[in-house]
Amino acid sequence: MSDLKFSVVGDSTSATQFIAKTRQFSLVVDEPEALGGTDEGANPVEYILAGFAGCANVVGHLVAKELGFKIKRLKIEVSGELNPDRFLGTATKERAGFKSINLNLIPETDASIEVLTKWLQIVEDRCPVNDNLQQVTPIKLSVEKEYTAI
Amino acid sequence: MSDLKFSVVGDSTSATQFIAKTRQFSLVVDEPEALGGTDEGANPVEYILAGFAGCANVVGHLVAKELGFKIKRLKIEVSGELNPDRFLGTATKERAGFKSINLNLIPETDASIEVLTKWLQIVEDRCPVNDNLQQVTPIKLSVEKEYTAI
Repeated sequence: MSDLKFSVVGDSTSATQFIAKTRQFSLVVDEPEALGGTDEGANPVEYILAGFAGCANVVGHLVAKELGFKIKRLKIEVSGELNPDRFLGTATKERAGFKSINLNLIPETDASIEVLTKWLQIVEDRCPVNDNLQQVTPIKLSVEKEYTAI
Repeated sequence: MSDLKFSVVGDSTSATQFIAKTRQFSLVVDEPEALGGTDEGANPVEYILAGFAGCANVVGHLVAKELGFKIKRLKIEVSGELNPDRFLGTATKERAGFKSINLNLIPETDASIEVLTKWLQIVEDRCPVNDNLQQVTPIKLSVEKEYTAI
């Protein structure tokens, strides 16, 4: 299949709040009050964890079908630890983002633990979000001064 | 500051749909019909782009304040290209996730382009989501068979 392009465009509605538009969806990103925000939406790194869990769900079901077992229910827990010092501008050797992320899949299924272990390995290999978090991805940031000065 | 822990937990509501809960928020992740879903929410990789844009918004405002200029409006565009073959299980050498991501910041401000170029470099260094996408992050995936077989 050829490459697919995904995109988001949006406007800042405050120093912490952003309305991200993608296709017909509007997603509100904010920060909790403890991080200076108005807490009207999940924060950026929570979006990353939600996307990761959503990705594991899709790939998990796809691979279960290929391996020939049914998932009756699937609970997913994902968490990550992050030191906010670099983000906040404090002098630090800490990295800015999550130091580590744990994702736990809890399927209700009659597949054996051996099959589930194989399933997990395939999910890990094929989940796009897992790839982008585990591996290096080239990112180009740019700034465009569209508006004229006052 | 000490480390912060962020977490998401949720249940699959179909083979493509997942309700991600984080604090008081419920986020619906789905896939478009072209990728086998019911299109009731943005898809996992769109969540990643939304989180990235939301992160750039927060850090962008924080750093502008430190550098002493005002952002009157801020538009952010972010896009990424992904080949779906590995995700779909087709034999391929393509990686699963985004091959590249572009993020473009379009501030309405009277700061000079020189100041904005410095601003962009600091945003890149301090944005947690940028760090997790650009650099390697240790991820632990696990499976837990909580439910008994039928």
